[in-house]
Amino acid sequence: MTARTNQRIDGARLWDTLMEIAKIGATPKGGVKRITLSAEDRQGRQLFQGWCEAVGLKVRVDSMGNMFARREGRDATRPPVLLGSHLDSQPTGGKFDGALGVIAGLEVMRTLHDLHIVTEAPIELVNWTDEEGCRFGRAMMGSAVWAGLAAEETIKALKDEEGITVAEALQKIGFTGAELCAAFPADALFELHIEQGPMLEAEQKKIGIVTGAQAQIWFDAEVTGYDSHAGTTPAVVRKDALLTAARIVDLVDAIMREEGDTSMTDPGRGTVGRFNVYPNSPNVIPGRVRFSVEFRNVSEQRISDIAETFPARAKALAEANHTELTMTPIFRVPAQPFDPECVSLVEQAAAKLGYPARRMVSGAGHDAVHTAMRIPTAMIFTPCKNGLSHNEAESIEPDEAEAGTQVLFEAVLARANRVI
Amino acid sequence: MTARTNQRIDGARLWDTLMEIAKIGATPKGGVKRITLSAEDRQGRQLFQGWCEAVGLKVRVDSMGNMFARREGRDATRPPVLLGSHLDSQPTGGKFDGALGVIAGLEVMRTLHDLHIVTEAPIELVNWTDEEGCRFGRAMMGSAVWAGLAAEETIKALKDEEGITVAEALQKIGFTGAELCAAFPADALFELHIEQGPMLEAEQKKIGIVTGAQAQIWFDAEVTGYDSHAGTTPAVVRKDALLTAARIVDLVDAIMREEGDTSMTDPGRGTVGRFNVYPNSPNVIPGRVRFSVEFRNVSEQRISDIAETFPARAKALAEANHTELTMTPIFRVPAQPFDPECVSLVEQAAAKLGYPARRMVSGAGHDAVHTAMRIPTAMIFTPCKNGLSHNEAESIEPDEAEAGTQVLFEAVLARANRVI
Repeated sequence: MTARTNQRIDGARLWDTLMEIAKIGATPKGGVKRITLSAEDRQGRQLFQGWCEAVGLKVRVDSMGNMFARREGRDATRPPVLLGSHLDSQPTGGKFDGALGVIAGLEVMRTLHDLHIVTEAPIELVNWTDEEGCRFGRAMMGSAVWAGLAAEETIKALKDEEGITVAEALQKIGFTGAELCAAFPADALFELHIEQGPMLEAEQKKIGIVTGAQAQIWFDAEVTGYDSHAGTTPAVVRKDALLTAARIVDLVDAIMREEGDTSMTDPGRGTVGRFNVYPNSPNVIPGRVRFSVEFRNVSEQRISDIAETFPARAKALAEANHTELTMTPIFRVPAQPFDPECVSLVEQAAAKLGYPARRMVSGAGHDAVHTAMRIPTAMIFTPCKNGLSHNEAESIEPDEAEAGTQVLFEAVLARANRVI
Repeated sequence: MTARTNQRIDGARLWDTLMEIAKIGATPKGGVKRITLSAEDRQGRQLFQGWCEAVGLKVRVDSMGNMFARREGRDATRPPVLLGSHLDSQPTGGKFDGALGVIAGLEVMRTLHDLHIVTEAPIELVNWTDEEGCRFGRAMMGSAVWAGLAAEETIKALKDEEGITVAEALQKIGFTGAELCAAFPADALFELHIEQGPMLEAEQKKIGIVTGAQAQIWFDAEVTGYDSHAGTTPAVVRKDALLTAARIVDLVDAIMREEGDTSMTDPGRGTVGRFNVYPNSPNVIPGRVRFSVEFRNVSEQRISDIAETFPARAKALAEANHTELTMTPIFRVPAQPFDPECVSLVEQAAAKLGYPARRMVSGAGHDAVHTAMRIPTAMIFTPCKNGLSHNEAESIEPDEAEAGTQVLFEAVLARANRVI
């Protein structure tokens, strides 16, 4: 395809930079392990900061470690247009989840620089802290605090499995910034991201025009039974925490399937992703299991119903097995529509460039879902192979990355130059 | 109670020594974490060796790290009478599981020393390597190799979760002995152990005369699915390894309950004790789960039937959930009767001392079950509070420890002095 514009981002440079950042935390299977606030995260942040400064961007870090790389506009009084995503990854993550949106934003900045374009409004490229939530059990931390959805002190007190707090981890990598983390006046935010689903590929679309995001609820669950000897403890006196947890895993799956399990468009999602058993020894009946539970749905009502009914259904399973259950909701993301004007800027850009596109709802949570509660926001999706992500085999095509980035460029430019 | 004998072991010294060894790997909750071939195991072995040498015992270590502390008899040509147990513990184990049998054996040696008793046959006190099986996934390693039930090179190649082999761990703590690990001519073995079950306490018996042990089969199971994103992957395309593993946990429990779950005497045992999920992140559908499965029963036939049918039943669950399962039997312990003469020596000792006693079958596996395949063997059980073990709250009464040790003393003495 040839995009109908004379202002082109550099697809080759974009791809090379994506491959460059993917080396940090690279896994043998071709994926990336760049867990939030780890040594690899620090490396990635430093590399990113250097690239930003090389094209004259001024980088600030806030108290949650969120990074903002600013390019001045003609009118310093105008609130900035934001774009970006996150550089942290899952433990066995792919090269593009998050990184694409940040590096595409960098490519937009480089292109503006090369073409000596001066926008009306300033533009700020964001790298949010801990989008993935795989270390401290709470996803999209940086944008949550920024948007005022969570108290900074609460988030900073969260601990990983080793008992290290967010505050300590931030200090350790040296990214606790001076600026207080809070929503500042901003004109809009655009986030480019891989779809992480199968839809665009199935319909051979290049661009997803994201109109909003699913509702989500996450729980932190703990089952308590009683450790005892596997060989001598008869069934009648067992308090097997693993057995209870196993039945809750099955319940979560059943609740998901209540809305169908035969079509790609079934809306239900229910997942237990983290699951730790104690004392975890072959001939000891487990006395404790701690695990995560999350449900998502495009329907706000459905998530409200699950929030109402699921804990009681799980507790009944625990009691039937003579064990105790605590099921703590750790966060809730309402179904979040994006800003119609920003969404149509994305749609217009895709149309102008002649890319096959479709409107869709995001299945995953994103930092943009948080910012959308404070400022006009939209997202752009690009296809990923087999709809696969959170997997080392996650893969996209260079021309897909280029198309998404060109759309991001057009939308940001249009927003930054709009007449107000 | 007063035991009807003028040759008494020292109950106070026995208890003090039990409390002394319990300090090594002591946990805040009053238990012990002395995992096999760890730094704590080394400390415990060194302390034990010093105590043995202080009463003139000569300590040998074999190539599996099994320790033998020898007291010569009048007739050096007679094969030794063995007694002992193990000093390693579960990750959240108690003070007495294993340690009681070793320290009681030490008290027997100290008493023989104090009373200047010369037995006809030599006596050897044993500390077997890795009875618990919590680190390398294979219980009763040292006695298995000694009894010729497992090849030393196979066992030494087993790895823990960090990839450290048994051979490496033995070297690290400096307990790879010169003597080849193999059954040598021995006249008998007696092992004192806590019951780890509720029977003796329920019937207010002081001594369990153990006539044999349950049959066991252990499996190493691994389910393979596909890591993918919890928010974007519809039910229809999920390959959730955790869901499959959860259903197998439920199946194991169901198979146990097929033989009843209402009475303390129901013979079925089925347990998943170790269970590890990968990548173990809240919003990733788990692609892999590795876990242990074990079944035990007094009935050899029942364990044979389970060995036949269980893997196929588990595989069916895996296939129904679009995942793959490998179910590898890692070891099998046949129902093992003990030696009638040795068992009656224990029974006679309990009777002579006037302790309420009962014949019973061991629910747990023990090193004595392995030695019983090579040499005349018997076990003595003492009660434990609430039948609880493999738990930091494991507890026994000093007078119970003393009674069991006195019975051990009488049985060993009678065997070592018998006319042949």
